Amino acid sequence: MQTADIITLTTDFGLEDPFVGQLKGALLSSNRSARIIDLCHAVPPHDILAGALTIHSSYNFYPEGTVHLIIVDPGVGSKRHILAAEADDHLFIAPDNGLLTLFFQHNTIRALYRIENPALFSADISNTFHGRDIMAPVAAKLAGDMGLDQVGPPATIESCIHLDLPKPLVSSRKIVGQILQVDHFGNMRTNITRAELHTFPFSAVSEIRIKGVRITSLARTYTDAPAGRLLALIDSAGYLEIAVNRGNAAQFLNCGAGEPVTVLCR
Amino acid sequence: MQTADIITLTTDFGLEDPFVGQLKGALLSSNRSARIIDLCHAVPPHDILAGALTIHSSYNFYPEGTVHLIIVDPGVGSKRHILAAEADDHLFIAPDNGLLTLFFQHNTIRALYRIENPALFSADISNTFHGRDIMAPVAAKLAGDMGLDQVGPPATIESCIHLDLPKPLVSSRKIVGQILQVDHFGNMRTNITRAELHTFPFSAVSEIRIKGVRITSLARTYTDAPAGRLLALIDSAGYLEIAVNRGNAAQFLNCGAGEPVTVLCR
Amino acid sequence: MQTADIITLTTDFGLEDPFVGQLKGALLSSNRSARIIDLCHAVPPHDILAGALTIHSSYNFYPEGTVHLIIVDPGVGSKRHILAAEADDHLFIAPDNGLLTLFFQHNTIRALYRIENPALFSADISNTFHGRDIMAPVAAKLAGDMGLDQVGPPATIESCIHLDLPKPLVSSRKIVGQILQVDHFGNMRTNITRAELHTFPFSAVSEIRIKGVRITSLARTYTDAPAGRLLALIDSAGYLEIAVNRGNAAQFLNCGAGEPVTVLCR
Repeated sequence: MQTADIITLTTDFGLEDPFVGQLKGALLSSNRSARIIDLCHAVPPHDILAGALTIHSSYNFYPEGTVHLIIVDPGVGSKRHILAAEADDHLFIAPDNGLLTLFFQHNTIRALYRIENPALFSADISNTFHGRDIMAPVAAKLAGDMGLDQVGPPATIESCIHLDLPKPLVSSRKIVGQILQVDHFGNMRTNITRAELHTFPFSAVSEIRIKGVRITSLARTYTDAPAGRLLALIDSAGYLEIAVNRGNAAQFLNCGAGEPVTVLCR
Repeated sequence: MQTADIITLTTDFGLEDPFVGQLKGALLSSNRSARIIDLCHAVPPHDILAGALTIHSSYNFYPEGTVHLIIVDPGVGSKRHILAAEADDHLFIAPDNGLLTLFFQHNTIRALYRIENPALFSADISNTFHGRDIMAPVAAKLAGDMGLDQVGPPATIESCIHLDLPKPLVSSRKIVGQILQVDHFGNMRTNITRAELHTFPFSAVSEIRIKGVRITSLARTYTDAPAGRLLALIDSAGYLEIAVNRGNAAQFLNCGAGEPVTVLCR
Repeated sequence: MQTADIITLTTDFGLEDPFVGQLKGALLSSNRSARIIDLCHAVPPHDILAGALTIHSSYNFYPEGTVHLIIVDPGVGSKRHILAAEADDHLFIAPDNGLLTLFFQHNTIRALYRIENPALFSADISNTFHGRDIMAPVAAKLAGDMGLDQVGPPATIESCIHLDLPKPLVSSRKIVGQILQVDHFGNMRTNITRAELHTFPFSAVSEIRIKGVRITSLARTYTDAPAGRLLALIDSAGYLEIAVNRGNAAQFLNCGAGEPVTVLCR
């Protein structure tokens, strides 16, 4: 695989502190021509599932050869490993804490290594910021011309940490899922995908229930409902989403992640 | 016009979600040498007027040939059009919902097209994220060497959506306007411009009234008033602004957008 | 010193408004090949000490020759000066209000000038946004091939504004310091550094007290304490930090900047 000079950043650092700024400095110090792209720094603190969903729903919009650095690392400084993986012609660097679970489940992992070659690290390594001191210099060099096999010994998918993702229950006339995430607009993504809805014909969806409210059809776009009205549609990542046209569904229904959602068919 | 490789982003996406990250990926996948600049992602959700003010007050600080992508798009997926415009040696891509109103009113539009050429779009087009699936690939190609006339048929200004902007009432000894926006510092921009104040001599401004409080002169800088004191001045975009030196005027007066402001002259 | 084409931005502008976007435009208009890096825009409004800590704890992760633009400028438009400094093979541009205090105290300043050459400024200079109209064009040109001595007359460290930084009191068996800053994770940085702790042997630290709570040893990493438990460690910048493993120490203790912290030794 030919790497690009593009490195994306997905972290739970927020933007209030200099952490992201220091990370970018460490990347540029190791590879001055790296092109650094902020993918998302608002993963909720320590929320590994949210980080896993963010990178898996976004990486494929980037050019092949992009290096993706994902840092949600509550175990920093402990014995947890750090992984470097190749999948779908992209490279991923992340702590071994479940951040790559969706790639293990849905992608072909072409190569998988543990990052353990200290010659690649910063001269001074803190105990609390391995993103900056270990992962950044490795990512920067991979975005240059270093091969993936230079980072450390190979690893196996089985030896890595996997998250338990909440799966919808699919039966012949019913799917029971839940809200996974609420976005900036108050749109609520469920864990029910287009593929699961396709297990029965679209036209057969008779009702979507959430918090005692019934939505009686699947919309195509937000504007299929009048302004202020609740609706359900397939979102831009292929998930069933509960939304309000020009409004905020999470506030409208006063609920969020974990809320059960039921889809009934005729 | 010679385009640059610079693309600015102005959206209401916020930074909590992966939307901005996906948008950047789509841009880089269409044009690997694009230089992406976050202009502002904090336009309030669905607030077309705020988006229109943001881009019109900022574009001219960029080099000629910059491509500006403006996405506040509550009508996404409906029949609304998407526009590509050239004005003042810059290019603008935005849904046809009023985002370009200020350019229609204040600039010479050198070219105006509807984006309707599907050969330029992503292979998969969602119903809810045309910024990523339609506007980004077009913007990326325009920032390369594609001509504006490749995007679709020409459009006329008259056929496009225009916003009704709140205008101040100017009479011989009085201007009545309102607060347009409150910024991060709590400074409050009014809809009264330097040009309107110039309709009577500066020295003649005898009073500025907001929420029953009187400010008796125009300051030049924040520090012309003691710390903690209310003042009025011309802001960096040429609007009359109500501020508090080293303080927060919106909190001080407990008001915001829509609040009436009256300027009296002798 | 050879400058790079990298310019970092540290401001109190926040990201809600177009200020950062305008600043980037001004930089690119003066130097089209500048590579602009957002270091941090969340310095609390007008908080010069926080800005000073942010840049001093971050600049050294960047490559030599980087130009750092630091804008926390409540005195904008007044008679305050603007400085351009070279230290440690980096360049710094900031208002003369104390933002460079830590460099004056801890670094060798190789060159120091006042920015007063109007030929370098924007054609239109507002009274309220010198970051955009004066500092940005100068920073952009310095990141190109302009020499530092072109910006204006030399200045002396003694003539510049210095902040009074809160210093810990170190005695033979006790250090009394305070919380300096709380980060996004709720981790609380004190003003006590590794160097001060080293005045007595590490093993001798018998107790760290904050808000009546006692921590009886120094941890190496967050995971040295059980999840939810308070701990103290040396953070990634070398300061004593109070944290909660997988939790938020500021919320746990219900305190923040200014809170006294006492370290006792045997």
